Amino acid sequence: MPIRKILIANRGEIAVRIVRACAELGIRSVAVFTEPDRYALHVKRADEAYSLGDDPLAGYLNPHHIVNMAVQTGCDALHPGYGFLSENAELAEICAQRGVTFIGPSAEVIRRMGDKTRARQAMIDAGVPVTPGSENNLSGLDEARREADRVGYPVMLKATSGGGGRGIRRCDNEDELARNYERVVSEATKAFGSADVFLEKCIVDPRHIEVQILADDHGNTIHLFERDCSIQRRNQKLIEIAPSPQLTPEQRTYVGDLAVRAAEAVGYTNAGTVEFLFTGNQVFFMEMNTRVQVEHTITEQITGVDIVREQIRIAAGEPLAYRQSDVRHQGFALQFRINAEDPKNNFLPSFGRISRYYAPGGPGVRVDTAIYTGYTIPPHFDSLCLKLIAWSLTWEDALERAKRAINDMRLQGVKTTAPYYLKILDDPGFRSGQFDTSYVDTHPELLDYSEKTKPEEIALAIATAIAAHTGL
Amino acid sequence: MPIRKILIANRGEIAVRIVRACAELGIRSVAVFTEPDRYALHVKRADEAYSLGDDPLAGYLNPHHIVNMAVQTGCDALHPGYGFLSENAELAEICAQRGVTFIGPSAEVIRRMGDKTRARQAMIDAGVPVTPGSENNLSGLDEARREADRVGYPVMLKATSGGGGRGIRRCDNEDELARNYERVVSEATKAFGSADVFLEKCIVDPRHIEVQILADDHGNTIHLFERDCSIQRRNQKLIEIAPSPQLTPEQRTYVGDLAVRAAEAVGYTNAGTVEFLFTGNQVFFMEMNTRVQVEHTITEQITGVDIVREQIRIAAGEPLAYRQSDVRHQGFALQFRINAEDPKNNFLPSFGRISRYYAPGGPGVRVDTAIYTGYTIPPHFDSLCLKLIAWSLTWEDALERAKRAINDMRLQGVKTTAPYYLKILDDPGFRSGQFDTSYVDTHPELLDYSEKTKPEEIALAIATAIAAHTGL
Repeated sequence: MPIRKILIANRGEIAVRIVRACAELGIRSVAVFTEPDRYALHVKRADEAYSLGDDPLAGYLNPHHIVNMAVQTGCDALHPGYGFLSENAELAEICAQRGVTFIGPSAEVIRRMGDKTRARQAMIDAGVPVTPGSENNLSGLDEARREADRVGYPVMLKATSGGGGRGIRRCDNEDELARNYERVVSEATKAFGSADVFLEKCIVDPRHIEVQILADDHGNTIHLFERDCSIQRRNQKLIEIAPSPQLTPEQRTYVGDLAVRAAEAVGYTNAGTVEFLFTGNQVFFMEMNTRVQVEHTITEQITGVDIVREQIRIAAGEPLAYRQSDVRHQGFALQFRINAEDPKNNFLPSFGRISRYYAPGGPGVRVDTAIYTGYTIPPHFDSLCLKLIAWSLTWEDALERAKRAINDMRLQGVKTTAPYYLKILDDPGFRSGQFDTSYVDTHPELLDYSEKTKPEEIALAIATAIAAHTGL
Repeated sequence: MPIRKILIANRGEIAVRIVRACAELGIRSVAVFTEPDRYALHVKRADEAYSLGDDPLAGYLNPHHIVNMAVQTGCDALHPGYGFLSENAELAEICAQRGVTFIGPSAEVIRRMGDKTRARQAMIDAGVPVTPGSENNLSGLDEARREADRVGYPVMLKATSGGGGRGIRRCDNEDELARNYERVVSEATKAFGSADVFLEKCIVDPRHIEVQILADDHGNTIHLFERDCSIQRRNQKLIEIAPSPQLTPEQRTYVGDLAVRAAEAVGYTNAGTVEFLFTGNQVFFMEMNTRVQVEHTITEQITGVDIVREQIRIAAGEPLAYRQSDVRHQGFALQFRINAEDPKNNFLPSFGRISRYYAPGGPGVRVDTAIYTGYTIPPHFDSLCLKLIAWSLTWEDALERAKRAINDMRLQGVKTTAPYYLKILDDPGFRSGQFDTSYVDTHPELLDYSEKTKPEEIALAIATAIAAHTGL
């Protein structure tokens, strides 16, 4: 069934990204926005835009309202982006009921992969290795103790319906397990509406490797190789790399095939990501994200495949445009999440008005953003300003290109993570391509940078302003 | 000999492009500028910048002054970019005398390829097909008549030292030949300081296909495939495409090998471009450009090779980083020269202040530019505002991406060629991938477009301005 008009149930750069995919496919795009986003770029760039009301967040989080709006505006499909309602099975269900094509997997698959114990069981059944842990939700602290003894400390207590790094606690011994058990149950109940918790062996300082999947309604599933997302801070990814500089070709093939097997085992369709933890030579399934990822861009850079367009094509019932053997990867791409945060101040958000923004450009540089000069970053949403992607044929060249591109950019008015990334790019540990998820915590010295503007730059800025003012 | 500091003897986007290559190689960059360029982007982005004086053009065209400045500022190399002195053999000679590495071929090769009859002879000797024509410069009208009779009308009378489409006249019969002969001699004397002219058979409505070459000082020469530059207006390229959508793989291999043979025959080193005319199944050598081309970007997009960086590496005496078999091409890239010109008004230049510029972005889009919001395009130089490059895996997808990227861009304050390109992108003749150099002249209907801003855009602009002003 061809798709002619898509409601984009999101905001920010991913909404702009979807508008672009629509434009390239000749599909009409409809933006929605809450009041703080009235002058947002996704609103300006979409073919149509409608208000979801004054409350900054509520509108983006109400599946009934959003699907209603899709129906009222004549949309035949809905793209959820990432975050917000993107992994909400109810949204997919309401879409199905109202005859709107949901651009993503089925509600049943979203629900199954969102329930971590059911997802684990599906992986075990499919022969995909999972972290040793409790087979089901825990009945209480006694069972938690027995399971922890069985798999060995440290263990992770996890909310079964959790996600995004919340509802998780590490326990290094029986005392900590006892102390944390009720806390996680209580957090899970509050945050996710379910008291279910389970337990896994804690993989200490793993590498985070995830595989991009595409699957159509005709039984075809392929992978687009992996991304290395080990550079994180408190489970929030900062820099993502494709392909991983620390996998051998054999490991690459192995984990790619594993991800395809995982997706096929649950009848997955559309784009998705299978996340794995690597430690030594061991690989464990972590979770599957049933939506487009923030970092899908770097996979696009190394393969040339337009993932958002494939999402739309798949949702329209078309077969995949690629067989596994068609997909090649070339070079290395790094994505830097330039967040409006102050790394030196514990990464505190730095919302405010962008007094000046000038995009980096030239060879091997891609920017996905929704900011512009004069734009005020609203405090209600995440702090992502732009995704700066640098690509080159070799790892070393990609690192130098990334530094150049970050230096090329002008972004004034808010503090950002950009200068911190420049320090990381000069760190021999990062440049070696060998790092794990402990990297950010174990390199506090990289926060020691100076943000002073060069005197020449100040002089030039003043001179330029005077010249512009006096018409020189 | 390692290069540590480069003087960039150019301006505009190519100077910015070279600054970027320097930054990625850890080389210090020195910009030079004449007074109208004091606030130009290449001045702001280079590590150092020095004035060449008040005259807008003279400073950029004085090889002695520029090499002096390179010596005085401690530069060990000089990059000429394109245009200006880039094909001036004297500049290469002065560099050699002053111990500054010229980033380009030797003065002797520049001189030989700049003399069209000597270049023709070199190609004939190397077995590279040239257009039938006079073997040497013509001794007078009598010889011109005999040669024209021999090769058959129409013929082209050309200034031997000419270039850039000047000093050329087409003659369809003996009368026209007689009428034009003295004119071309006179033009050649005035414009190029030499009365030498020669004659070639006129290839009517050819396709313009050029091959990118890289050659090092160690005897290695490779090609990076071809570009199709048939979309021209009065010998000025408007849209360039890599690879050509109208070559078979066999033709691609043939013309690539031919270009390598041509370069090797003249002892070519550094980056260069061999231009060919295609007509039916025939291929003729046209000329060799002994410098980086405006359109080198699209070759970078399909191969991943950084041509400017390779230029610098080669000049430093390093061997090529690639063998021919290492170089692959993937997908299609189109470059659009967004010029400050009014296509509806006979492409009259539209200089002025850029009141607003917002770069296009997202997947498969590259921008090379030196403009910014508030920048005034000086009337002394060319009218190129930015090079917008769109890439995708297939020809059709690249066309859609190009449309999307042009629509994505915001460039206000001057008229540009952008809306004309949107018309071309919708033309079935262009989309078929089959066109020759007559395309622009034979499609005047594509100039029939409306530039009205959408009412929604105006309303939004006003609302945004009010909101910004009142602090809403």
